Amino acid sequence: MVGGGSDAFIGAVHRSAAVLDGRTEFTAGALSSTREKAIDSGRALGLPDGRNYGSWEEMLEGELSLPDEERIDFVSVVTPNFVHFPVAHAFVESGFNVVCDKPMVLDSGQARSLVNAVEEAGVVFAVTYNYSGYPMVKQARHMVREGHLGEVRKVIVEYSQGWLATSAEENGNKQAQWRTDPERSGVAGAVGDIGSHAENLAHTVTGLEMAEISADLNAFVPGRRLDDDANLLIRYEGGARGVLICSQISTGEENNLSIRVYGSEAGLEWRQENPTELLLKPAAAPAQVLRPGNDYLCVEAKNASRLPPGHPEAFIEAFANVYAGVAEEIRVRKGEREPGGAEKGFPTVYDGARGVHFIEKAVESARSERRWTDARWRNATNGNVASGNGEKPNRRVQGHSG
Amino acid sequence: MVGGGSDAFIGAVHRSAAVLDGRTEFTAGALSSTREKAIDSGRALGLPDGRNYGSWEEMLEGELSLPDEERIDFVSVVTPNFVHFPVAHAFVESGFNVVCDKPMVLDSGQARSLVNAVEEAGVVFAVTYNYSGYPMVKQARHMVREGHLGEVRKVIVEYSQGWLATSAEENGNKQAQWRTDPERSGVAGAVGDIGSHAENLAHTVTGLEMAEISADLNAFVPGRRLDDDANLLIRYEGGARGVLICSQISTGEENNLSIRVYGSEAGLEWRQENPTELLLKPAAAPAQVLRPGNDYLCVEAKNASRLPPGHPEAFIEAFANVYAGVAEEIRVRKGEREPGGAEKGFPTVYDGARGVHFIEKAVESARSERRWTDARWRNATNGNVASGNGEKPNRRVQGHSG
Amino acid sequence: MVGGGSDAFIGAVHRSAAVLDGRTEFTAGALSSTREKAIDSGRALGLPDGRNYGSWEEMLEGELSLPDEERIDFVSVVTPNFVHFPVAHAFVESGFNVVCDKPMVLDSGQARSLVNAVEEAGVVFAVTYNYSGYPMVKQARHMVREGHLGEVRKVIVEYSQGWLATSAEENGNKQAQWRTDPERSGVAGAVGDIGSHAENLAHTVTGLEMAEISADLNAFVPGRRLDDDANLLIRYEGGARGVLICSQISTGEENNLSIRVYGSEAGLEWRQENPTELLLKPAAAPAQVLRPGNDYLCVEAKNASRLPPGHPEAFIEAFANVYAGVAEEIRVRKGEREPGGAEKGFPTVYDGARGVHFIEKAVESARSERRWTDARWRNATNGNVASGNGEKPNRRVQGHSG
Amino acid sequence: MVGGGSDAFIGAVHRSAAVLDGRTEFTAGALSSTREKAIDSGRALGLPDGRNYGSWEEMLEGELSLPDEERIDFVSVVTPNFVHFPVAHAFVESGFNVVCDKPMVLDSGQARSLVNAVEEAGVVFAVTYNYSGYPMVKQARHMVREGHLGEVRKVIVEYSQGWLATSAEENGNKQAQWRTDPERSGVAGAVGDIGSHAENLAHTVTGLEMAEISADLNAFVPGRRLDDDANLLIRYEGGARGVLICSQISTGEENNLSIRVYGSEAGLEWRQENPTELLLKPAAAPAQVLRPGNDYLCVEAKNASRLPPGHPEAFIEAFANVYAGVAEEIRVRKGEREPGGAEKGFPTVYDGARGVHFIEKAVESARSERRWTDARWRNATNGNVASGNGEKPNRRVQGHSG
Repeated sequence: MVGGGSDAFIGAVHRSAAVLDGRTEFTAGALSSTREKAIDSGRALGLPDGRNYGSWEEMLEGELSLPDEERIDFVSVVTPNFVHFPVAHAFVESGFNVVCDKPMVLDSGQARSLVNAVEEAGVVFAVTYNYSGYPMVKQARHMVREGHLGEVRKVIVEYSQGWLATSAEENGNKQAQWRTDPERSGVAGAVGDIGSHAENLAHTVTGLEMAEISADLNAFVPGRRLDDDANLLIRYEGGARGVLICSQISTGEENNLSIRVYGSEAGLEWRQENPTELLLKPAAAPAQVLRPGNDYLCVEAKNASRLPPGHPEAFIEAFANVYAGVAEEIRVRKGEREPGGAEKGFPTVYDGARGVHFIEKAVESARSERRWTDARWRNATNGNVASGNGEKPNRRVQGHSG
Repeated sequence: MVGGGSDAFIGAVHRSAAVLDGRTEFTAGALSSTREKAIDSGRALGLPDGRNYGSWEEMLEGELSLPDEERIDFVSVVTPNFVHFPVAHAFVESGFNVVCDKPMVLDSGQARSLVNAVEEAGVVFAVTYNYSGYPMVKQARHMVREGHLGEVRKVIVEYSQGWLATSAEENGNKQAQWRTDPERSGVAGAVGDIGSHAENLAHTVTGLEMAEISADLNAFVPGRRLDDDANLLIRYEGGARGVLICSQISTGEENNLSIRVYGSEAGLEWRQENPTELLLKPAAAPAQVLRPGNDYLCVEAKNASRLPPGHPEAFIEAFANVYAGVAEEIRVRKGEREPGGAEKGFPTVYDGARGVHFIEKAVESARSERRWTDARWRNATNGNVASGNGEKPNRRVQGHSG
Repeated sequence: MVGGGSDAFIGAVHRSAAVLDGRTEFTAGALSSTREKAIDSGRALGLPDGRNYGSWEEMLEGELSLPDEERIDFVSVVTPNFVHFPVAHAFVESGFNVVCDKPMVLDSGQARSLVNAVEEAGVVFAVTYNYSGYPMVKQARHMVREGHLGEVRKVIVEYSQGWLATSAEENGNKQAQWRTDPERSGVAGAVGDIGSHAENLAHTVTGLEMAEISADLNAFVPGRRLDDDANLLIRYEGGARGVLICSQISTGEENNLSIRVYGSEAGLEWRQENPTELLLKPAAAPAQVLRPGNDYLCVEAKNASRLPPGHPEAFIEAFANVYAGVAEEIRVRKGEREPGGAEKGFPTVYDGARGVHFIEKAVESARSERRWTDARWRNATNGNVASGNGEKPNRRVQGHSG
Repeated sequence: MVGGGSDAFIGAVHRSAAVLDGRTEFTAGALSSTREKAIDSGRALGLPDGRNYGSWEEMLEGELSLPDEERIDFVSVVTPNFVHFPVAHAFVESGFNVVCDKPMVLDSGQARSLVNAVEEAGVVFAVTYNYSGYPMVKQARHMVREGHLGEVRKVIVEYSQGWLATSAEENGNKQAQWRTDPERSGVAGAVGDIGSHAENLAHTVTGLEMAEISADLNAFVPGRRLDDDANLLIRYEGGARGVLICSQISTGEENNLSIRVYGSEAGLEWRQENPTELLLKPAAAPAQVLRPGNDYLCVEAKNASRLPPGHPEAFIEAFANVYAGVAEEIRVRKGEREPGGAEKGFPTVYDGARGVHFIEKAVESARSERRWTDARWRNATNGNVASGNGEKPNRRVQGHSG
């Protein structure tokens, strides 16, 4: 693990998620940007001295110096955004598998470069769009893809929080500080931090690619340099329409991520704060409440549960499903396991690149006088629109994003 | 009553709402556009022959020929949209009080003319934006106006239905036929039919006036001539932002009208399909669930309930609250009752005009290349922005829209 | 109407419910137990002087003196409990149809006598177990009766309120005063007032007859003479088990009536405070949310709605459904309408008698040392167990209780 | 770990829960009752050969043969019920700390013996009444204990499942087989398996001790030898009343555990299937929705969350909180950590003994002709009623049950 020292809540989530299923051990790390804090954090978390590194560069060197079978199987990059690229790129180039937090990198140039590196190195690369790990998201995805909704016409995706409704960054909140700082977060605030989750959720569930967007970005808190609220109209390829709402000034909201998809034959609805319910709303029959652990679910959703129905699993378990997918894929690559069958999908470097593209386009649209901004994402490395080409072997095996 | 014969569900709602509290009797009508159906409907509903008119013109004449104290106290206009103006205008000019269905008229010209007529005649004029009659909407309005939310920053208002997801107008559904027909409905479909309710709800609760809008209107069902889905970004006067979503192709939704308002200190949420719950979400305290009939509510909300807590009241009762407000105001005008105190507000001709303006601007925006379309509503008759001027005696006494 | 003057909330509900559908007019009354208040109330409510009676005896005499076609079609008895019997009995004996509030009478002796009178007079007699009028209760009843749940095994019915958690009767609350007074309410408090509703709801939905009960009645508020809380275990004929919970000291509950029924193949759940949702929970498929106004409902549930889906109807509308059933049945009796088809059921004198029996048995059980108290209800007039005999023509035509 | 091999879902839960927070490693086990399966399971789960034991007796011997600092810190007993006692007793006697699944043992004799052993050995002993680990249960407990509800008058606790609505035990379901088998489960079925959870939840939240109970136990599925459904009336010491409902034949219910507590000043409500909401319902103010991770919670509830508000934690995390409490207490005992302050409580051997007592009394009551069965629990070892004596140092430090 790189980053994720004692202060950082997301580091602990990654560790819990990784070990939850007993497939992964936490064996090495460079847990902070300053040597002393890194070493202290590693000690507190029980890392052996030899692999408790003072910086990610030392870690890379140290792990490379170990015999193959002793090296880490993968590295998790959980630093602030601006550090993702150098770390991820360096580890990929050295042949390590990588799990990287989102947004993957700061701009499309970095994204292109990273996609190239991953394709050349042939490593497993996951981006922790963790919400895609929820069983009922997998079920939603399944139902849309299988046509249970008919032709998809409308997507409403929302991610509303309230924790930045006041100037938390000026009151010592470290999360708030780096997330509202363009140097460390990139060109966008709320759009980058949570809008990218919303975009990924919509894409994961529907497979739709954005064609054009119209974004209204706002910074409500005086002195804030990045957007803390954003509302977008979306036109998808193929004619579907969308609305994406994200906000960190929606007072009283905690972590209100939700998606609704309306097709010609049914609608569906899922809300992250009550993640064990998926509503299917047919045109002329009673709405159905689908819940995890039941036999009536698709195999991907069933595989994503550890417990019988009614024993709720939540955020950490969904996060763990991303790690479980990575662990499985690594085993396939190592030849320890047959591919095919019940693979657990996970978001890949292409999802990461799409997310970075979305953030850039949202900012571009917000600054434009024109109503619509072209937001088509073309695969960084070959100029094709990614959706539907399906030719990348890497993606067929790994990913959600087929 | 003009319109509202046997076929029309909304006519029956108006009648139930009007008589619910025992303050109004159904005494005269011209219930259909064809003489025979009008007479038949009136008979079936128990109108006395002498006041069961074959056309609205005959009704106007007939009622005018009666001595003052025998005439109807007010007329309800519940015809398809395109008939609202001539009927309402004629009755207003003859000095009758009017309750008119929404959207009030077809365009701003008609609206201006009607506002003028109402101001000159000094009659009571209500538009049945019935959702404003719900007790918890009145409470929401109270809390926003009293500053319980702090400064309002964001409004998300939505009205989603699914009943036009298929081509109902080609399958004999009469409601669908006139509502999708530009000749009878005006320039907009979903925006006019339900978007205008959403606009009114947002304005009623927050008092905010739209400055600019950016609208994406769509017609998903092949052959449909008016929008059946619309999504709007809104910039309000004073800096608040909004999203307005309306749709009649959101399969599986029944009548899903909801509003959320986020202020600097708290958020609130109300959903029409579960109208007895109003959520208040403070920044740093547990969310509160406010429910009708309780002593902790404001006087307007308390006055809008007939029953003790836990005995739900719903759509018809909210509708009846509009009628109760009109009946009360008429009594005040007649001198039968002191003004002041616990008046029940109701939407006025100004709300109606604002709604028509909104519909026009949404259509204009959807056709524009520019991102933002000016949507400021100026009082039809004096060129001032209506909000905040507060000088119209009519509005001070009557209305919600101060 | 007898009773229901200005003070009494339930009188207003009866009037609103009766007139809601335009089938009934409020034409005569003796609205209070004291002449002066009766006359004042009647005037305030617009009764013509000639039929604004000072006592129910005068009203009975006055109406009898009118020609048949001018008399009231039925009388609503909405007095405190102890007055139900004399009024209802006298009007029945004089051949009037009666709508009577619940609990119907004070004891089984009165119930027997009233059943006899109704059978002899052949009048229509309804008891306002109004919760049976909700569309989704009718749907629940339909699904149980049609076997959608398989064999019914367990019923959990609950009616919890909190308004008597303090000594409201000593603080000037008139409702509290008579409801906690054995002279006016009878042998039971909460059990009589709301437990009887719960019993009726369970019977209406399932058709099950109680065999044995075990009741724990409590009076939590010091000085209270009747129970304010009761919990019962039930063994039904045929082997099903039940739990009935009722309380008026459940602080924070408003009017929380709910029922759950578990069968061998599915369960169902309905809650009065959110009456537009009926949950069906099959053993091996997603739960379904059934809502009023939809085509997938049974005919009785469809007939019980006035509005399209998503336009909620609630307490008054359910109450109005009882009145609509009575109005329809009276028309059938008068020969104005063919029987059969879409009759709207309503609770009859037998439901009323069953309820009184239940109250007596609950009190008896609470005083007994034995675990189980026989609670089988036998038809007052012929000694047979009522359920299943189905021979009473009166009941076949009228009622819910077949 | 003893038990919990590949088949057993609860074994995996224990392991995930134990490692979730990085404080515990899975180092040794005897994972099945047959040597071969035990060894295979251990291997599959990555146990080192030297500590992958073929039986619990070997494990006890093996661990005792290790130097103190290499031994397991505690053993988790997750076998079918009838094996709990011998294993737990043997490990306790040898001085090992123990985490034991519920119900702790088969009868009061065993419970007494185990309590004695724990008191003599002075070890840490936890029973995995895991639902007490939910943050909002800790908050509920806090609010009741601090008097936010006033005097507690009524408790309604329910645990309804539907998975045994059919004869699953005859269709190869292993869980169903041992849970419906008196030889392996003890005297009770549903009451032992889930009723004991409900009893513990009610006691944990309220601290109330049962005085008398009246139980109706049923076996609905033909051929079943233990109860699959039970309903109890409860009279608590001090005058509160209760209802306990538990069932495994409530078709369509998954794992519906809920509790409601009504006091003289407020009520509260919590539902396990949506565990992040705790409703507080004051008498005269809006209901409040309390949610995990917020500053307004008590310290015990705050300590029980790992994530910010809106990032739901669920079953495994609650389970992990029990383990975290044990780990902490062990550290205190070892002197690695100061006692006091933010200790995480967990259910102790006394909670386990109370649960066994409850099961026995429920069965006794169900067989009795008398209405009420004395159900007072006296501390197995000293004859005192446990509640309120507060003298056991062990309990003061460790437990929930003070």
